[in-house]
Amino acid sequence: MSNITKKVSWSSRGDELGPVGEGTPLLNGSEQPRHSRQFSEGGSLFQIDRLSTVDLEEEISAEEESARGQPKEIPHNSKLLSLKYESLDYDNSENQLFLEEERRMSFTGFRCLEISRWLICGLIGVLTGLIACFIDIVVEKVARYKYEAIKQNIERFTEVGGLSISLILWAVLNFSFVMVGSILVAFFEPVAAGSGIPQIKCYLNGVKIPRVVRLKTLVIKVCGVICSVIGGLAVGKEGPMIHSGAVVAAGVSQGRSTTLKKDLMIFEYFRRDTEKRDFVSAGAAAGVSAAFGAPVGGVLFSLEEGASFWNQMLTWRIFFASMISTFTLNFFLSISHNNTGDLSNPGLINFGRFESGVLGALFNFLNYWLTIFRIRYVHRPCLQVMEAMLVAAVTASVSFTMIYFSNDCQPLDSEHAEEYPLQLFCADGEYNSMATTFFNTPEKSVRSLFHNQPGTYNPLTLGLFTITYFFLACWTYGLAVSAGVFIPSLLIGAAWGRLCGIWLIWADPGKYALIGAAAQLGGIVRMTLSLTVILVEATGNVTYGLPIMLVLLTAKIVGDYFQEGLYDIHIKLQSVPFLHWEAPATSHWLTTREVMSSPVTCLNRIEKVGTIVDVLSNTSTNHNGFPVVVQPSKLCGLILRSQLIVLLKHKVFVELAGSRLTRRKLQLKDFRDAYPRFPPIQSIHVSQDERECLMDLTEFMNPTPYTVTQETSLPRVFKLFRALGLRHLVVIDDANRVVGLVTRKDLARYHLGKHGLEELHLAQT
Amino acid sequence: MSNITKKVSWSSRGDELGPVGEGTPLLNGSEQPRHSRQFSEGGSLFQIDRLSTVDLEEEISAEEESARGQPKEIPHNSKLLSLKYESLDYDNSENQLFLEEERRMSFTGFRCLEISRWLICGLIGVLTGLIACFIDIVVEKVARYKYEAIKQNIERFTEVGGLSISLILWAVLNFSFVMVGSILVAFFEPVAAGSGIPQIKCYLNGVKIPRVVRLKTLVIKVCGVICSVIGGLAVGKEGPMIHSGAVVAAGVSQGRSTTLKKDLMIFEYFRRDTEKRDFVSAGAAAGVSAAFGAPVGGVLFSLEEGASFWNQMLTWRIFFASMISTFTLNFFLSISHNNTGDLSNPGLINFGRFESGVLGALFNFLNYWLTIFRIRYVHRPCLQVMEAMLVAAVTASVSFTMIYFSNDCQPLDSEHAEEYPLQLFCADGEYNSMATTFFNTPEKSVRSLFHNQPGTYNPLTLGLFTITYFFLACWTYGLAVSAGVFIPSLLIGAAWGRLCGIWLIWADPGKYALIGAAAQLGGIVRMTLSLTVILVEATGNVTYGLPIMLVLLTAKIVGDYFQEGLYDIHIKLQSVPFLHWEAPATSHWLTTREVMSSPVTCLNRIEKVGTIVDVLSNTSTNHNGFPVVVQPSKLCGLILRSQLIVLLKHKVFVELAGSRLTRRKLQLKDFRDAYPRFPPIQSIHVSQDERECLMDLTEFMNPTPYTVTQETSLPRVFKLFRALGLRHLVVIDDANRVVGLVTRKDLARYHLGKHGLEELHLAQT
Repeated sequence: MSNITKKVSWSSRGDELGPVGEGTPLLNGSEQPRHSRQFSEGGSLFQIDRLSTVDLEEEISAEEESARGQPKEIPHNSKLLSLKYESLDYDNSENQLFLEEERRMSFTGFRCLEISRWLICGLIGVLTGLIACFIDIVVEKVARYKYEAIKQNIERFTEVGGLSISLILWAVLNFSFVMVGSILVAFFEPVAAGSGIPQIKCYLNGVKIPRVVRLKTLVIKVCGVICSVIGGLAVGKEGPMIHSGAVVAAGVSQGRSTTLKKDLMIFEYFRRDTEKRDFVSAGAAAGVSAAFGAPVGGVLFSLEEGASFWNQMLTWRIFFASMISTFTLNFFLSISHNNTGDLSNPGLINFGRFESGVLGALFNFLNYWLTIFRIRYVHRPCLQVMEAMLVAAVTASVSFTMIYFSNDCQPLDSEHAEEYPLQLFCADGEYNSMATTFFNTPEKSVRSLFHNQPGTYNPLTLGLFTITYFFLACWTYGLAVSAGVFIPSLLIGAAWGRLCGIWLIWADPGKYALIGAAAQLGGIVRMTLSLTVILVEATGNVTYGLPIMLVLLTAKIVGDYFQEGLYDIHIKLQSVPFLHWEAPATSHWLTTREVMSSPVTCLNRIEKVGTIVDVLSNTSTNHNGFPVVVQPSKLCGLILRSQLIVLLKHKVFVELAGSRLTRRKLQLKDFRDAYPRFPPIQSIHVSQDERECLMDLTEFMNPTPYTVTQETSLPRVFKLFRALGLRHLVVIDDANRVVGLVTRKDLARYHLGKHGLEELHLAQT
Repeated sequence: MSNITKKVSWSSRGDELGPVGEGTPLLNGSEQPRHSRQFSEGGSLFQIDRLSTVDLEEEISAEEESARGQPKEIPHNSKLLSLKYESLDYDNSENQLFLEEERRMSFTGFRCLEISRWLICGLIGVLTGLIACFIDIVVEKVARYKYEAIKQNIERFTEVGGLSISLILWAVLNFSFVMVGSILVAFFEPVAAGSGIPQIKCYLNGVKIPRVVRLKTLVIKVCGVICSVIGGLAVGKEGPMIHSGAVVAAGVSQGRSTTLKKDLMIFEYFRRDTEKRDFVSAGAAAGVSAAFGAPVGGVLFSLEEGASFWNQMLTWRIFFASMISTFTLNFFLSISHNNTGDLSNPGLINFGRFESGVLGALFNFLNYWLTIFRIRYVHRPCLQVMEAMLVAAVTASVSFTMIYFSNDCQPLDSEHAEEYPLQLFCADGEYNSMATTFFNTPEKSVRSLFHNQPGTYNPLTLGLFTITYFFLACWTYGLAVSAGVFIPSLLIGAAWGRLCGIWLIWADPGKYALIGAAAQLGGIVRMTLSLTVILVEATGNVTYGLPIMLVLLTAKIVGDYFQEGLYDIHIKLQSVPFLHWEAPATSHWLTTREVMSSPVTCLNRIEKVGTIVDVLSNTSTNHNGFPVVVQPSKLCGLILRSQLIVLLKHKVFVELAGSRLTRRKLQLKDFRDAYPRFPPIQSIHVSQDERECLMDLTEFMNPTPYTVTQETSLPRVFKLFRALGLRHLVVIDDANRVVGLVTRKDLARYHLGKHGLEELHLAQT
């Protein structure tokens, strides 16, 4: 059991998640009746179908129960759906306060808001660019010192013997940098580990990953990524830029920092999930843009990952049609001009058919098992730091060994000079080619592989390098360090692409390196449109667009046959309730009746304070949204936990006798000030007298929640939920009575497996 | 009045629109009571709130009434909203038949469907590419003959005098081609006029433009565009490609052609608006891709125009953030590398700030008044043909005059040889520079302006050319010929861009030509992200991306200050109920109660055939969707006119006495076979006996329509409607009773004017 609840990553210290932890009775499905319709207490005005469990259905099957008896079973398989993740609220709560504010606001007011939005986007761009700039400069400067030092050391000992001292120097240097980076991440902010792309994907999808967009995360991410790149790990600094951009956006758009306890009192209008999400997607785009110099690619990345109702499959098909169209046009025009080979190089197009996706899938497969191993055995911060240091040492040693035993000597070319040419055992005026691939930041190595003259690399060098780097990169991704997988993938792909290019003698190996890089990266991350644009923008050459597209399409099709994309694997292994683009194709036979959570905890429009406190304090349910009803159980609104918390905190009570308001009228500002870190219910003290008071929810509830009937099919509900970014969808019967509630986990639970529709098990972990 | 109902364009022969024409009493608001609650007839089972006008609210204000008294008033102002346009149904009607089919379908079945989708997209790409290829080759070959002939003629007469013969030859040639193209368009298919982009925008937005995606339209479009380009008009062949691609997609995806009376019996699953729309967007993308060699740009175009819930403003802001980010990074990195000018050419960035948008806005402004003039006075096909021929003759004459009086002689350069160098009055070994700009297809002229050496063009030549071509292009757009505005805009922009480049001596005029072209086109059409990508892909040089973006952003901001984009102007002038991305900002004070149409024509679940026939035959209402209710007026479903028509055609009646079905059970196939040209109700004969029968709608209605309550705010309803692509949204009260219906025109009616929220008037025209 302890392996289940203690986890390495993302949110191992889920202090925001309420006290649902080990040994809570909820995990034993038998202790808590699923339909606790009988649970109702005196003193409340409305007693049927309420105050009972919802949002949590303990459908832990017999299979799962037995698994708990066998601690050897891996608990984090992909058949679980975690209940610990909360959702974000991308649907505005259009309550009276909100509508009043909107109606009061003049046309000029909306203009100003619009201008602020542009201003914030500009700021996000500038800050993200500066961060990228900072990382780049620091890495370059420090890496230069490191490589100079090692180079001098090696040169000193090559003749006299004693190269083991150089090895130790190299290993220790890497070791130290990685240790610093890893300690920062593992002990201070585990959510800063990795590239952050899966986390940002989840955020844009509507899942709340605790602490993912905090200032502290950003600081640790930046320091961590500098350390791991300088530490010589097989990582890139590009993925983390996307995360950094997102954090910058989340911070700037709120006009305050909770960490720094500083509120500038500006941009208060944007203090809600809907607005913040839009800015975060802008931030992620700015991150891509800064990392690859690909602004259009950045926009496409955000849209592929974040837009509510942008259908990826559809886009992809549209893209396909576009591509075919250009191709046909080019082909026939080139025939008509008696110049059939005109459409860039057809040799490129026929290439990279199969290996691309297979290698990517293999990478993902290995990383999948490695991640499961890590979740089981490497979950303590100190173990994580040790693993990172081990990887650093191994990377240095392997590199060194490879260089040592390589005898691929190339003549020193003054024109395309390598930055750190290592002579080693080569003749004077020559340098060791293997050394240059390792003895460099990965970005520079990629560039050399793309642009160096044919003949610069020996096939054996490339082959060995590919294999070694493949395993190193695979081992590295998922370590407790801030690091991206883009550049290592490109490097692996570029190496074997160039290898293929050398074998096909008539081709330019640089082009093949590019195509190989695209294939490898596409096979690992499985993005299509955005990745094409990113690569084209990064290479600055539109003519490679068509071959890159074809290779990415192939890589995705082949790769999807074996395994999902790397990011999706990591999301699934965390059991995140991630909503895909569409409901599973074969789910039309499911109706809302089967899918929804029922019975629902409802509140009355005028409700006893005591009842509300009890509902919120019920740690076994921990609901976040409550339909508001009037007699006889007719739906009249929806209120959120966060709103109730603010109401309780400000004691907006009405005494039973009269209708005297105990405090000043609540403003929208009070809710915004509390956003996004609403206090837990335990921190709010309500006296026994106050428990007897009433609370009028009319003004604060959303009076027009979206509703569906029980007969609605799952795809239809899914579409509504996904398109509008909902968090709670109320199910009503034909007399407008509340009969159920659909939340994210009810929909995310169904997925298409190998044998048709499958249902994931819900778990507290 | 006659000016109101007779219109030039789009759908001047609206034979599908039902017999609502001149003199219908509906136009006189007083004759038809708005709330005709009393209208109910005997024999039907349910009598309150039904069989009364909906979908049509005759809110023609006093202002408008008085306008009718003054026939001088221009009737097509932008304050009208036409009721003649039907909507498309992008929301599946999930009735029992549909659900049964979906549930019967196996996983393999869905796989096959998915594969068909890809196959169709491939086919669309191939066919669109072939069409582009055909147009390109034909235009090139025929234009070559034309220019060779004229060139020889001019050369013959230059020395001996008698150039007026050449002028006449030129004019007559242009004249004839344009006449053919114009006759085809004006007499055979008016919807093929223009670029077709506004029509495709409307289609993707959900408005049904009659005959816009028919085979006949495609044939006429292709012939028309060939004629008008060869006819030397100031037009391009690129815009029409987008329309052509869309028609190809609509045809291929349906697996049959109604025009050719050929049904291949394949792809029957795709015979509904939802699926067809997706293919049409793929077709439009393929068209862009074929026209500009810009596959990514094509995808973005489709998404900017078509995606349901892709927010353009948001995208644009995201894009802005991306751009700023790259810029910042580049800037600071270039400082850090002591090489501040590194980020392409900063000279380009500082350029094109203001004129760009202003010139575009001026173009749109002139074209706006010209279009209004045309709608009023040039609405008969023969007049349209004559106008087109006039323009052709004027274009030829003006070009000739310009060439004749120009003495911008340039030395013949064997390396960058012009295709048709005209010596005219120049010295031997020189050619007339003005002639080359006119004496060419516009595409080639644009290319020359971008790529020719500095010094090739004389500033005076460019200035005169810009002015002349500006007015010619403005006059040409909106003629009854198939023609695009992309290339003429680029040409104008390139000319004045190059002019500016020549003045700023230190700059490369070719680059400035590109930037000018982007600015001019952006100022006219006001696209951002997609246009940037299209231009970058078309020029094949990513480094111009940043300046192009900046110029397009500026052009849009400046242009929007004066006037809308050209396509939006034309859409507005046709009074199309176009739904923008969001509800107007200041519309929160409007609730569904004020917006909805009420009372609603409802049908009973088991309804008398006679009642249904009467409802459908009611030409004064012409409703398309009917809520289905059970006693006491509780909503239980929604049924469409088209479905009822199919039911009546197949006589799915139940006799009053027993429950005997008169015919075989209806299949989904019967509905698909009738799609999309459902017969009018008048063509279906129902005998007096049959009128007394009943019809059971249970199986055919959509039992789970989306609903809202009366208190829902306009922006909230708008979001639901837009995101899900709805056609009818049922408004219910707290007891699930139908109280109203929201349709497209109820939402499209509100827009943000200069003085805050304005309401458009509804009109039958």
